[in-house]
Amino acid sequence: METFSSKYLETAVQEIGKLPGIGKKTALRLALHIVRHDESYAQNLSEAIYNLKTKVCFCKICHAISDSEVCDICANPLRDFSTICVVETIKDVLVIEATQQFRGVYHVLGGVISPIDGVSPLDLEIQSLVERVEQGDVVELIFALPATVEGDTTCFYLYKKLAHCSCKLSMIARGVAVGNELEYTDELTLARSIRDRVEYRV
Amino acid sequence: METFSSKYLETAVQEIGKLPGIGKKTALRLALHIVRHDESYAQNLSEAIYNLKTKVCFCKICHAISDSEVCDICANPLRDFSTICVVETIKDVLVIEATQQFRGVYHVLGGVISPIDGVSPLDLEIQSLVERVEQGDVVELIFALPATVEGDTTCFYLYKKLAHCSCKLSMIARGVAVGNELEYTDELTLARSIRDRVEYRV
Repeated sequence: METFSSKYLETAVQEIGKLPGIGKKTALRLALHIVRHDESYAQNLSEAIYNLKTKVCFCKICHAISDSEVCDICANPLRDFSTICVVETIKDVLVIEATQQFRGVYHVLGGVISPIDGVSPLDLEIQSLVERVEQGDVVELIFALPATVEGDTTCFYLYKKLAHCSCKLSMIARGVAVGNELEYTDELTLARSIRDRVEYRV
Repeated sequence: METFSSKYLETAVQEIGKLPGIGKKTALRLALHIVRHDESYAQNLSEAIYNLKTKVCFCKICHAISDSEVCDICANPLRDFSTICVVETIKDVLVIEATQQFRGVYHVLGGVISPIDGVSPLDLEIQSLVERVEQGDVVELIFALPATVEGDTTCFYLYKKLAHCSCKLSMIARGVAVGNELEYTDELTLARSIRDRVEYRV
């Protein structure tokens, strides 16, 4: 599918095809969808994408995506600033916020330590986290990092980096997912869920 | 995942999520990809989408997507204007062009007759095809429509509509598996099906 009858179509297919997980065929399908729809849709989509990159900034406190210097969460006086939840990406902030169980604030690392992908501690927002904790108002730091080797490595690195601080370090529970059968849970998770068992409350 | 920390992010996710086959999670993944990449990418993508709708037009002869009033194929004096290949969509033009087996010109119907989807012959570029044929220079019309009931119905409708014309009607060989769409057929099969086209009989 090399010859396009329109260079605008070709450019659009090329640009859309650069998005992750979108191949050339899907890009063409999406481009033709845009052509077939009203002009306002193409305009809105185009504007939204442009604004996304040019107007969005990162919160200078927690490094989450924000419309202003300080994000809505960090600017909310009702949040508990003594509890910081450390997450890998902004997506994790969104999913944790959706649970409505957490009233503290966040710190987005922007990744996890992964030598194989060339991600070193210096590429992450670790220094700014240490500074936040060193200011002394933080009572508890919750590690909500992925349950992978990289996530565990990052937790351990942070633990070492924060050893001189008095704040409590905790970690989200690893265990059997709600709704899952024991027999389909892997042994490591099951072992972990037994070790980290909690008091039964009703 | 309801609470977004940025209204620009929220708008972008909403607009991207309107594309066919792109759900909210994928939209968020794509939006965050755009945020993480250089500004030039967001700008190029945004421009490409806007141009796609505003600058692209349809060839007044064959109705394919084009940058000008007459598309490159219809404006090319080296093409054989006595042979018209009738296709469902612009995508079909692209896949047939990719086989490099066809030197004639095209006519894009913009769909096939499908009462169940509310597509009647009046919604398609059938009248303009009849006019092209009635001008008298057309020697052969090749039906390259999908091998589906709707495609066959459309062929039959065109056959009836063109009964008064002297031009030869042919049909791409059924090398295309019954029930399949043209765009998913490999180039060899498609090239073969054009070479082995047979006279349209009822």
